Formats: sequence, structure tokens, C-alpha cells
Amino acid sequence: MRDAYIVGAGQSKYGAFPDESYRSLFATAYEEAMESAGGVEPGDVDEAVVGSLGVGGRQLGLSGPAVTEHVGLHGVPCSRIENACAASGYAVRQAVQAVKSGMADVALAGGYEVMTDMSGDVAKYWLGVSGETEWERLTGTTFSGVYAQMASSYLDTYDDASPDHFSKVAVKNHANGAKNPKAHLGFECSLDDARNAPVVADPLNLYHCCPTSDGAAAVIVASEDVASACDDAVRVAGVGAASERVGLFQRDDYTSIRSSAQAAETAYEMAGLGPDDVDFAEVHDCFAIAELMAYEDLGFCERGGAPELVDDGVTELGGDLPVNPSGGLKSKGHPIGATGAGQAVEAFKQLTGHADDRQVSDANVGLTHNVGGSGGAAVVHVLEGGVL
Amino acid sequence: MRDAYIVGAGQSKYGAFPDESYRSLFATAYEEAMESAGGVEPGDVDEAVVGSLGVGGRQLGLSGPAVTEHVGLHGVPCSRIENACAASGYAVRQAVQAVKSGMADVALAGGYEVMTDMSGDVAKYWLGVSGETEWERLTGTTFSGVYAQMASSYLDTYDDASPDHFSKVAVKNHANGAKNPKAHLGFECSLDDARNAPVVADPLNLYHCCPTSDGAAAVIVASEDVASACDDAVRVAGVGAASERVGLFQRDDYTSIRSSAQAAETAYEMAGLGPDDVDFAEVHDCFAIAELMAYEDLGFCERGGAPELVDDGVTELGGDLPVNPSGGLKSKGHPIGATGAGQAVEAFKQLTGHADDRQVSDANVGLTHNVGGSGGAAVVHVLEGGVL
Repeated sequence: MRDAYIVGAGQSKYGAFPDESYRSLFATAYEEAMESAGGVEPGDVDEAVVGSLGVGGRQLGLSGPAVTEHVGLHGVPCSRIENACAASGYAVRQAVQAVKSGMADVALAGGYEVMTDMSGDVAKYWLGVSGETEWERLTGTTFSGVYAQMASSYLDTYDDASPDHFSKVAVKNHANGAKNPKAHLGFECSLDDARNAPVVADPLNLYHCCPTSDGAAAVIVASEDVASACDDAVRVAGVGAASERVGLFQRDDYTSIRSSAQAAETAYEMAGLGPDDVDFAEVHDCFAIAELMAYEDLGFCERGGAPELVDDGVTELGGDLPVNPSGGLKSKGHPIGATGAGQAVEAFKQLTGHADDRQVSDANVGLTHNVGGSGGAAVVHVLEGGVL
Repeated sequence: MRDAYIVGAGQSKYGAFPDESYRSLFATAYEEAMESAGGVEPGDVDEAVVGSLGVGGRQLGLSGPAVTEHVGLHGVPCSRIENACAASGYAVRQAVQAVKSGMADVALAGGYEVMTDMSGDVAKYWLGVSGETEWERLTGTTFSGVYAQMASSYLDTYDDASPDHFSKVAVKNHANGAKNPKAHLGFECSLDDARNAPVVADPLNLYHCCPTSDGAAAVIVASEDVASACDDAVRVAGVGAASERVGLFQRDDYTSIRSSAQAAETAYEMAGLGPDDVDFAEVHDCFAIAELMAYEDLGFCERGGAPELVDDGVTELGGDLPVNPSGGLKSKGHPIGATGAGQAVEAFKQLTGHADDRQVSDANVGLTHNVGGSGGAAVVHVLEGGVL
């Protein structure tokens, strides 16, 4: 099994961009990725994989070739991969497989979504299509509702946990996002702001929920031969993915996302590394409860230990294990199909020392964690800098 | 680059099944594939990839995990791949990459679509989402219209070509489909029937167009180690894929699908084989003109030579190079997301001697050719029997 490396990465700003299309946003991400990949030219791209849910019913069919043609990659095989909010995490994984298979030396993986040009109800429909259809979507359950059930269960199960821990996650992620010029909600918030926000789905309030965003992200994955000649290269040391019952009601436990834990285990095993080796992580904090569960599912602490990690500031930018230095989905934003690739963009920047004000010190091993729906799909990458 | 083999294949009947869902149809295909894969058990599956356009807006997000959970493959990573009508041709290709990468020893590739439970107008919308949006779909151009433009251009370019060649393709494919118990339109038609059918989009009439179908198909792809212990194994000798401008108006030539030709070239090169080595082919005859163009794009004859191949009966079941022994999209049917995997199912049956009344004699090398939209995506597999 040959090694794969990320050699370039770029993204659009995340936010609300009424003058942009999914294609123009993708072009911005692609061009930044290609510029950063000193040593790789557009003509070198053997394969492309793009992630998108297709919110708004834009180009639901053939949107892969539709974006690659827009950036001039004519003829390059391109498919769209869809795994709800984990679409482009899976796209990165597929590009890694393409390179490892020997069928590609250079593979482009990216994602995009346009979400802000529709009403809340329409957006809810399009997010709802990633929930379980018969027993969640058609009964009116939204994603906030699904994660609120997880949050309630978590609070019930662990006495040390309180809604304040959700608010502290929000404060941390906004503090990081305020240092990220690409963030959608790039402002700081106080603990009081986060505590007193209007309820969305009890016990989750507005600051415990990520926004809907427009945006795109892209990375360039290459073989070792190609990577050796590039300015920067980050080794994809481990990759793991798993599925889980799509509907929450089919699961035994609401305090953990089993697919995340399984994906992490696979990725760690392939990398020959463990959670203690991880210097920072980008995790899927679509709701604050999701970040707490991620700490546990990824092995950063024992079950029920996440609130203590938050209280001790371990996962803050200056802590022992910074989580979501980019601002995470909460502050950086969550353009569904772009999110997973965007996490890889941040990890690339961190591991190559280009994260500016939000640079994690001594960052050698980074982890990305991308979840689809309420955990129906999960994908984890363990990335290693300074290898080549 | 290690070898990949198809070791099992199955499909539902194609047709109109008001009592079935996309999940039940997929389960039928999966179970038949698993039964045929003597030597592989469900617990061996490391990865799944399913193709679907999501016609009707059913489970647009996370439908990959939704079908794998339905067949009991809990935890197995599964993503949905979308490339319009080439969705599951690309799914097969991705499963091959997964095995070649070493990240999976056994990968399930399949596809499904439910299309017949909606009105013609709604179906047209859902097919339209795979066309170019601004200049085709939104101006009212349907796929019949797009292929009719290709057909007109072909008839204008080649004096030997006439609408009768389209009708003869229909007669041939119906003759084959009548021998296929899984075919949607499994009846014979006469040349007069085909000649006198009502016009759909001039010069294409009803018999020159494939039906909309419900159905599912699945194949099991495995490493050589696994395949060696299986009852049957077909080597994936070559794989090729390519994209093309999504909108017809962006292309220089309407008489050929460039992505098909490019995909075939890649697949032949990887296989170390050429068109002369091919014993039979399953090609993407969504419209009769598409089958004629495929003959030329796949190198079965020179440019403009397809009508002669038809007149000489070369591509009939008893001819030198049978094309669409299954009945093709025209007679077997075209449940969008299932079609590419369904072609691989037919090739597996032919290459392992299980094609019953429609068995191609001395079938050692088969080719599958799956097209997305009007050629925005294409994927070709060259498959070899009797290797292990």
C-alpha cells in the first residue's frame, strides 16, 4: 500500500455570498489549493472527487463534472460523493484510495455547498434529507432536535456535565474563529453571550448550533514521488470510516457516535498512532454536544470525561490538545459539502506552519473528524507533517 | 497495483414495482450477489459504495448508509456516488480502487433507483437535473432532445446512416432482452414496430428510447487472495473514466462522446488489450443513437462505421461481437443508479457461463460502458474471465 500526501489546500471564505455560485466558490478553493501546491500543475490532476449534498436542488446530477469543467479540468474523471455533512471527508478518503491504488498520482478532493439563499424552512428540508426519512424527517424532527436528544441523554448520564459546557465550547471555537479570516462567524463571544442565547431545541441554544454557510474547500492528494518534489507535504498516515444506523431510534446509546469511534480506531491502527500522539484536531462540532462526544469517541479522554477537558482548557488553542483551531463548524461555518475537505485544509495549514495567528505550537500530528447526519457516516484522517 | 476481481453479482428484476422501495430492491440485488459469491460472507465486506441519482428526492442524504443498514451491513463504511446515469459504473470503479489501494479486501458496489411512481413531468425534472442546468434544463431541453440533436448530427454527417439503424438496434436489443428474465421490457419487437412507433424527439421515436425503470444491482469486488477461494472470479483487467463538458453546446462534435473514447483508451491501456480482444460488450444505449456512437467510441469500428456493423449483424447475439446481450438499457431497462452495476452483473454472468439462453459463446473478455448525462461522465471496464 503506497503512501499518500496532501500537497496543497485551499478554501473560499465561509459565509453568506449572494453573488457567488457553487462553481465560483469551488473555483476559489481550487485555485488557492493549486497555488499552494508548488510542484503540481493543473495538467497533473488524474482524478477529482467532490462532495456535496446538493442543497437547494442546484445541479443534483453530474455536479462533479460541472465543477471540474468550470475550473478547466476537462476530461479528468470526476464523481460527486455524498454522505450528508461528511461528503467531502469521504471525498478526501476516496482521493487517498485513488492514489494508494496506483490509478492516480495526483487526485483533487473538494466540496462545496450554497445554503444561505433560501428560507429557514427550505434549508430545514434540505438538511432533513440527511436524516432518517420515515421516523425523523417525516415526523418533523430537525437536526437540532436530534442533537438535542443526544445532549439531553448526555446531561442525564453524566452528573458533571451541564449546558455551561456547551457554552464553553462555543466561546472557545469563536475565540479561534476570530483569528481565522476565512471564518463565517469570525467574532468572539463571551460566556454570558453563549449562556443567554435563545433556545433552539432544549437544551441547545443558538450558540450551541453551527450556522448554515456557503463555501468550498479543496485539497490535492499525491503519491510520494510527486510529493517529494512539492514545497509542502503532509502524510495521510491513517484513514478510517464507518457507518451507523441512520435513525437515532435504532441505537442503544445516545451519548456517543459509534461510527466516530470505529472510524478513529481504524485510522489510529493504520497510522500506528494513538490519541496521545495527536497534537490538535478538527472535529465535527455541528452542535456543541457533538464536540464533547467527539473528545470521547476519538479517545482524547474516557467516557464522561469531556466536561473536565473543557473546564481545564485542554482543548483551547494554548492547551495541551487544541480542538478546532479553525473555529470549527460553530465559528468557521458549515457549508455541508465543503466541511470535511475544509478540515483537511486547516490541518494542512497547521502542519505546514501556515496557520498564522491560530498556529498550534509543535503541531506534528493532526486529526480530522467529519460526521454525516447524526452519525450515519463518519470519517477520520490522521495526518502527519514533517515526514518528507 | 494489486489485482481486483468480481466474485459475485446480482440484480433485481428491472421494471415498475409499486410495492417495492429502493431499499427492498437493493436488498434483492445484494442477496443474489452474496449468494453467488461462494467463499465470501457478509461479515467479510470492508467497504460499500452505492450509486443513485436520488430520483424523487427520496433519501437524498446518507442513502448509502441507509441501504447498507437495511441489508445488515452495520458499521461498514458506505458512501453514495453520483454521476447521473453513470453513478454505479463509477461505484464499481471506486470499489476496484478500494481493493487495489489495499484498504479493502472485499468491497460491495451497487446502485438503485425508483422512477416509475411519478408522473412523466416529475420524472423529466429528475432526469433533467443531470443535464446542464442553465442552458439545457432551464430552457426546457429534455434528454430525448439532447440525444435527438446528436442523432440529427450523426445522420447529417454520415450518408450511410438512417433512422432504420436506430430501429435495428431496438430490434436486436429487444430480441436479447426477451431472453433475460430480469428485463423490464422483455418482449421482442419487429422492425415494423420499431419503424412505426410514435415520435418522441425527431429523429428518435419511442423504440429508440429506453424506458424509466425501478431496479437495483450489486457486485462484490475482491482481492486476488479472496477471489482465489471463490467459486467464480472475473478479473477487472482495465478501468477507465473521463469527464466531458456537461452541456452539449460546449462541444465541437455531436457525433461522438469524447469521454467514452477517453475512458475506453485508459481501460484498454491498463488491460493491455484492445477492441479486437473484446468478445462482447454491454454499452450505454439510453437512446439508439448512443449505441451507434458507442461502437465507434469504443473502437469496435471506424468513425461512421456503426451502421455497417448493424446491417451486417455483427453485434447481434450470434454475431462476432455481441453488444448488449442483456437487452441493454432499451429492453432490460434503465433504473438510473443501477445501470452501471447492472452491466457488470451481466458481464459477470456471461464470463462465468451463467447467462442461460443469452450466453455469448467463447466469452473470455467483456466490456462495460456506462455514460452519465449526455456524456459529462463515462466509465469503461474491461473484464476477463477464466484467469483464476
